[in-house]
Amino acid sequence: MQDDQHLIETRIDGERVYDGALLHINRDNVRLPDGSQAVREYVVHPGAVMVIPVLPDGRLLMERQFRYPLNRVFIEFPAGKLDAGESLLACAQRELEEETGYTAAQWDYLGLIHPVISYATEEIHLFLARELTAGEAKLDEGEFVETVAISLNALVAGVLDGTITDAKTVAGVFWAQQKR
Amino acid sequence: MQDDQHLIETRIDGERVYDGALLHINRDNVRLPDGSQAVREYVVHPGAVMVIPVLPDGRLLMERQFRYPLNRVFIEFPAGKLDAGESLLACAQRELEEETGYTAAQWDYLGLIHPVISYATEEIHLFLARELTAGEAKLDEGEFVETVAISLNALVAGVLDGTITDAKTVAGVFWAQQKR
Repeated sequence: MQDDQHLIETRIDGERVYDGALLHINRDNVRLPDGSQAVREYVVHPGAVMVIPVLPDGRLLMERQFRYPLNRVFIEFPAGKLDAGESLLACAQRELEEETGYTAAQWDYLGLIHPVISYATEEIHLFLARELTAGEAKLDEGEFVETVAISLNALVAGVLDGTITDAKTVAGVFWAQQKR
Repeated sequence: MQDDQHLIETRIDGERVYDGALLHINRDNVRLPDGSQAVREYVVHPGAVMVIPVLPDGRLLMERQFRYPLNRVFIEFPAGKLDAGESLLACAQRELEEETGYTAAQWDYLGLIHPVISYATEEIHLFLARELTAGEAKLDEGEFVETVAISLNALVAGVLDGTITDAKTVAGVFWAQQKR
């Protein structure tokens, strides 16, 4: 937007400084709005989807998964990274079925969130999944996930009491409240 | 928790693989619950605070800031990283004043969120700030931020229409709704 000119930073040059198994880090030199220079480092991410699956009884289908960087189990909505060339909906359907075994007959796109705008390009697209049917999970090798059904009221209480702290999941609870 | 043993990953060894100006990346070898090994890469982060500042007229004091990794301006709650040895409250008070010029007479700790549980140790502690008094912002060199007052209803609408996508800010809107 024209009226954002006084805030905009522009790329001068940059390089890939780390190419790992999971993380890919760029380091760019940028021109700040006042003409000075600064360094920006960030995670280059392919994007992801998150699914808010509503069971026939109204409870939400959640996952419990150990997250190594924080050394504990988190309660989360099902989510996963986009494969190359994969559509958002196909990714959402694949992740839900792989991680929980469930398929859904009704899919609605809700919107997107950016989990970490200061140091990652990641965007997470949110889907509401309804008319669920149970099936067999097909977890990737090395993936350990268990599913749990939780009511929306219990999820709201869980955010307030510190049980639910994953930011994408808090955003999902917000969206589920709006769409109930 | 004992009943999480079937999900827990344990560190075998690891190293710092990137030490940048902003980002610090660890790469660890871990033992999975089934005894196999995997690699985990993650951003090591000092932690941060976010402030939900409520103006006397009930509107919330927000910031507009360019976020280079996503190449656009975002609407966000004021937030910033903890300095070494700094208390959470001192950090919240410092960031609010530096970025917006406002001070607050009433501070309440709300809770914390984890913006990116799959690849960062970052936690963000949330504070509600009330009884605000305007003053002069003291932005760091190279920091370009403008403030804007937005009603809670407009923020909720902004999440739903895709204007507000920063996940910590969506979580803040959720908390502001609960505390209104």
